[in-house]
Amino acid sequence: MDAIDVIRTKRDGGALSAEQIDWVIDAYTRGAVAEEQMSALAMAILLNGMERSEVARWTEAMIASGERMEWSALDRPTTDKHSTGGVGDKITLPLAPLVAACGAAVPQLSGRGLGHTGGTLDKLESIPGWRAALSPAEMLDVLRGTGAVVCAAGSGLAPADRKLYALRDVTGTVESIPLIASSIMSKKIAEGTGALVLDVKVGSGAFMKTVERARELAETMVAIGTDHGLKTVALLTAMDRPLGRAVGNALEVAESVEVLAGGGPADVVELTVTLAREMLSAAGIAGPDPADALRDGSAMDVWRRMISAQGGDPDAPLPAAPETHVVTAPATGTLTRLDAYGVGVAAWRLGAGRARKEDPVSFGAGVTCHAAPGEHVTAGQPLLTLHADDPDRFDRALAALDGAVEIDGPSGLLPLVIDRVT
Amino acid sequence: MDAIDVIRTKRDGGALSAEQIDWVIDAYTRGAVAEEQMSALAMAILLNGMERSEVARWTEAMIASGERMEWSALDRPTTDKHSTGGVGDKITLPLAPLVAACGAAVPQLSGRGLGHTGGTLDKLESIPGWRAALSPAEMLDVLRGTGAVVCAAGSGLAPADRKLYALRDVTGTVESIPLIASSIMSKKIAEGTGALVLDVKVGSGAFMKTVERARELAETMVAIGTDHGLKTVALLTAMDRPLGRAVGNALEVAESVEVLAGGGPADVVELTVTLAREMLSAAGIAGPDPADALRDGSAMDVWRRMISAQGGDPDAPLPAAPETHVVTAPATGTLTRLDAYGVGVAAWRLGAGRARKEDPVSFGAGVTCHAAPGEHVTAGQPLLTLHADDPDRFDRALAALDGAVEIDGPSGLLPLVIDRVT
Repeated sequence: MDAIDVIRTKRDGGALSAEQIDWVIDAYTRGAVAEEQMSALAMAILLNGMERSEVARWTEAMIASGERMEWSALDRPTTDKHSTGGVGDKITLPLAPLVAACGAAVPQLSGRGLGHTGGTLDKLESIPGWRAALSPAEMLDVLRGTGAVVCAAGSGLAPADRKLYALRDVTGTVESIPLIASSIMSKKIAEGTGALVLDVKVGSGAFMKTVERARELAETMVAIGTDHGLKTVALLTAMDRPLGRAVGNALEVAESVEVLAGGGPADVVELTVTLAREMLSAAGIAGPDPADALRDGSAMDVWRRMISAQGGDPDAPLPAAPETHVVTAPATGTLTRLDAYGVGVAAWRLGAGRARKEDPVSFGAGVTCHAAPGEHVTAGQPLLTLHADDPDRFDRALAALDGAVEIDGPSGLLPLVIDRVT
Repeated sequence: MDAIDVIRTKRDGGALSAEQIDWVIDAYTRGAVAEEQMSALAMAILLNGMERSEVARWTEAMIASGERMEWSALDRPTTDKHSTGGVGDKITLPLAPLVAACGAAVPQLSGRGLGHTGGTLDKLESIPGWRAALSPAEMLDVLRGTGAVVCAAGSGLAPADRKLYALRDVTGTVESIPLIASSIMSKKIAEGTGALVLDVKVGSGAFMKTVERARELAETMVAIGTDHGLKTVALLTAMDRPLGRAVGNALEVAESVEVLAGGGPADVVELTVTLAREMLSAAGIAGPDPADALRDGSAMDVWRRMISAQGGDPDAPLPAAPETHVVTAPATGTLTRLDAYGVGVAAWRLGAGRARKEDPVSFGAGVTCHAAPGEHVTAGQPLLTLHADDPDRFDRALAALDGAVEIDGPSGLLPLVIDRVT
């Protein structure tokens, strides 16, 4: 076997054989296939695609490159959720304890933000004392004690994906549905969850800008899960506007706690409950209604135990950014547009996100939205509050918001839940 | 400017701007664009193509990455030839002195063999004492003294191409017409020749297997030359069978000397004279007939002076391989096929070529053909003689010849000169 033969097969529009896939992933992980060879292959895959059987094998080979976790020591079924990422998407925070409160175990390996989308670990790290790095034994302890754990993936999990993901990031080969799908699914299958619900975001603030692309990604991931014996369901959900009112690390934690206390924005509550029902159903748990577990405080109890178990103080005040700038409504009328991408880039530039993997994030920075699309606003009322550690950041954030707000424009928001793919 | 933006532009089917091309070639040469980024871009170029204006600018940027030679100190016009490479293609050896004998100067920077095709420098190095590496001042001296020089390109010439060529070789991105054309033309334009004749080989032993692909490459190269003010003509010529009777370094030198002495195989003589006429015409030299210069010994005189000027002894015996193996005709009839690729791979495996750039070649190894396609052969007569330093090499060479010979099969040889592209 030879890297050039594998590259040529895909370059010339052929399907890679199981042997070619196993060989190239293993050799790449070991360093015997060079970075420049894998990037040429990734570009050929991006442009010429992969068949379902190739994607399944590619995923399998990435899983086989590392260790695979398993949770048979637990007395409850495991279930997990993965979101493709958006603006204000803090759903994991109320969702994991909620599902645990209803009787499932949620072993979630999560990630950090890059670009204009936030990362669950960055958000949780704004809670004083909370730590993301757990050993597998610690992870099992937290799961046993609380029913939910959200932590960073160890380096032994799908190392091929880790290497390939970093390569794709610098070679313009991120936007390939087979590569995105196999990257997500290899980590989730190696994580050992028994059921999986995928939240595939659609719209300006999402990775998939159109329903068609999102559906293709969802179908590809559901097929991979099914081919690997994992019960998998995907929802396509709206990311044309931010989810909820808070965008930024500590701001989103605060909003999540509101939801766990039985309040919070309607869209965050609806999506949390909808995903919780899917996760429980996929895990074969019937009976408990997640809406009740938000109302009766049982989800909040799990949250507090989960945060404490990872060193965090659920009662400590959250970091706040010292500088604020208010953007007011330019006219009176119906807010028809609050563009997710514009708000996401603004929050990123305010300090909530990172430009490079090694950059720190500001926990307090971000954007608070005082109105949601569809609501009536009055000229001059506060529309957005920008939060930053340094007032010099406001100008570039405001530039990102140029054109992001529209009053009495054409209506055309996506429904919160667009479709369900099984 | 950012490498990912440039990659994305081409990946998404767009045309690269002049600024993008200049930036990416310069940054790649400096090491600011990584190998894995350039290989992703090369694959995107291979699959999505380049427009004429992009290829011209890409070539220009590769020339600008290094130094550019110039020959205004000479009292004659310069003209050169480039072949895309084949089996038994020793034409440069008689051609350069022949054209010099007719009044032009030939400043040829040449290359080494890789794979099943031979390299001019490897052939000339089989002459005892001859050396390929000359400084620009030595090159001018040889040109002034003899009218022709064939030597290795210095590292300062189109360094971007040198780096990119090595990268393409290991990433499955060799077979892109814009990249092949710009690679060849950047070196030839930087070499400073005033006129250029391209010999684009077609057939099993050539890089371009079909007339259509060869024509596309020829048209792309002629367009680049024209866009750079270089008088450029291309011939498409046959490489379905070996050129001449000798394949291998010293074997080809001996055949070239036969041609310079007024003899030699008819196809080698015809192609040498045809290309000489094109080179002289492109250089604006009318009058001398190259066929005369082969007959009257003036081309041989230049050859002897040219070899001596680079340290070679034109009278020294050439290296010969100690081991031979004869392949006989399997039947009586007309030899309808002697496949160039099969013979080329056999010669390569006998030691005439190298598997890796750093390998040495055997000067004596190769194949002598005792019949050419179209000729009558008798069962049992010698058809090929294989030459090697080590008899262990014969088995694998014979395997390469499996199916390469056909008697009384369908006829269908390509004409020696298939077409002319201006």
